[in-house]
Amino acid sequence: MKEFELINRYFKGRGITRRDVDLGIGDDCALVSVPENCQLAVTTDTLVSGVHFFADIPPRALGHRVLAVNLSDLAAMGAEPTWVSLALTLPDVDLPWLEAFTDGLHEIAEYYNVQIIGGDTTQGPLTITVCAKGIIPKGKALTRGGAKVGDWIFVTGPLGDAALAIEARKRGIALTPENKKALEQRFFYPTPRVAAGQVLRGMATAAIDISDGLVADIGHVLRQSRVNAVIHADKVPVSQALKDTLPEAERWPYVLAYGDDYELLFTVPDAQKSALQAKLKQYGVDAACIGQILPGEGKLEVLLRGQKLALPAKGYEHFTA
Amino acid sequence: MKEFELINRYFKGRGITRRDVDLGIGDDCALVSVPENCQLAVTTDTLVSGVHFFADIPPRALGHRVLAVNLSDLAAMGAEPTWVSLALTLPDVDLPWLEAFTDGLHEIAEYYNVQIIGGDTTQGPLTITVCAKGIIPKGKALTRGGAKVGDWIFVTGPLGDAALAIEARKRGIALTPENKKALEQRFFYPTPRVAAGQVLRGMATAAIDISDGLVADIGHVLRQSRVNAVIHADKVPVSQALKDTLPEAERWPYVLAYGDDYELLFTVPDAQKSALQAKLKQYGVDAACIGQILPGEGKLEVLLRGQKLALPAKGYEHFTA
Repeated sequence: MKEFELINRYFKGRGITRRDVDLGIGDDCALVSVPENCQLAVTTDTLVSGVHFFADIPPRALGHRVLAVNLSDLAAMGAEPTWVSLALTLPDVDLPWLEAFTDGLHEIAEYYNVQIIGGDTTQGPLTITVCAKGIIPKGKALTRGGAKVGDWIFVTGPLGDAALAIEARKRGIALTPENKKALEQRFFYPTPRVAAGQVLRGMATAAIDISDGLVADIGHVLRQSRVNAVIHADKVPVSQALKDTLPEAERWPYVLAYGDDYELLFTVPDAQKSALQAKLKQYGVDAACIGQILPGEGKLEVLLRGQKLALPAKGYEHFTA
Repeated sequence: MKEFELINRYFKGRGITRRDVDLGIGDDCALVSVPENCQLAVTTDTLVSGVHFFADIPPRALGHRVLAVNLSDLAAMGAEPTWVSLALTLPDVDLPWLEAFTDGLHEIAEYYNVQIIGGDTTQGPLTITVCAKGIIPKGKALTRGGAKVGDWIFVTGPLGDAALAIEARKRGIALTPENKKALEQRFFYPTPRVAAGQVLRGMATAAIDISDGLVADIGHVLRQSRVNAVIHADKVPVSQALKDTLPEAERWPYVLAYGDDYELLFTVPDAQKSALQAKLKQYGVDAACIGQILPGEGKLEVLLRGQKLALPAKGYEHFTA
């Protein structure tokens, strides 16, 4: 199967059709219309085989995941996802693999009402880049730079599951079948917090998605907001599967430093705290208060039942090995 | 050097700053404002080492080229390029390589007044994906589907030079030093026809950029416009370097089928023909009339001094080998 047949079979005419797409797949560019009084939010994330995922990852999960990690960045700005471009570099044409990959991709795109408006299909080592676009009412975006002294720090869900799924495989950590399934589900099919991100608009002061690890990602917020923070490790939500598998003393690298969680971390003034928590609950999001913003210039202190906890190694960065 | 240092050193604060960029590199998303009464044009192209370029390509040329091929797609729609996202997958951090690569990239970005608004830097086999965005007055985009019977077919410049540069290296074709330099310049530093594309708005009926070869690319126009065409091979402009190197009988695969030219092919009604040629000349573009649109359903005939020329093999497609 050649490039153009592949595009016709797996992309053209599949997935949803948005009214604001004036020209989709099949010309030199796609053409879309951004509504008046909205800004365009743009983000790009690449997944490389052997770096971001094991080469034998179920292709349906990979299709889900590559879109999810990009939608998560849009969520962290409070944007409504609209359009994506897909650059797919494949070692060869494996039809069942492509079928499953595009199933996963179209499934999550439809769920979030996102249209794939174009892309590029090339031959080479398995690498996938998505450029996701979203819209946001002018001036309403949540940045990393707005946290204020006294704000409470929240996360939208449990951390460390994806980390444990990966390390269990790498280092042979024993998991019960139910826990293995639950943890892998969190790694394979992360949930971008798209609705939560939009709920945060006008209420939260800063937001970021946790992709590189809680400590590293909150670090961006603290430096860009020019504040300090304290986090209570024992307040950070963890799943039953993680609790079952790791004694408390062994959890912290997974929970605090590993990343791949794609939960949102956000800050909210005391006056909005209860209202925001209640509103998120309406969307099924049980946000947990894990700490507070303090005066300072970018430092983080992590406490465990009031005692200082040594910070685990920093979040994932490429080219550090 | 780690990922974040790399971004700070080579990207953040470098290059031009556009007023319509509300938030650039350094948050979960970039934020930009699309002017009212404009559509957003979006395109994505990937370059893979060993597939789209030799691994030893001068990095400055690669930086230029990866942006040029994307701007060429915007040009083919008549769009004004504005913002790009860059996904850079590198095997390792090679500082002199990165310095030269980003020099080439920022140079062409500045020339075309394009801002790099974000991206992703990952470790893996050398692969570069750019997602380029542009703006275009509503309804003024040039598509592949507008060619009408009787329209003249033009190209904006000589074809086959990049092809000859590549094949000369692969197959050891002898070149004079001047010709080698001229041909490699065309492969390494292609000129996206950005100004020409905007001149074509409201005058041309269809346009495409020649990336996969003249025959393959005009084929898209013919099928999407539901017309036939005749092209006179001897009217297709070729450079002196190509003429010097190849006897006429050996030129056609390079000129008609190889691609990598990044000239625009466009169609124009007879009534606009002279005015458009004159206007393009003001922008330094010497467009050549190479054929005409005929009634039909997508067929192309190529003539050489009135005699039918056998079509060379089709344009480049991935996964055909």
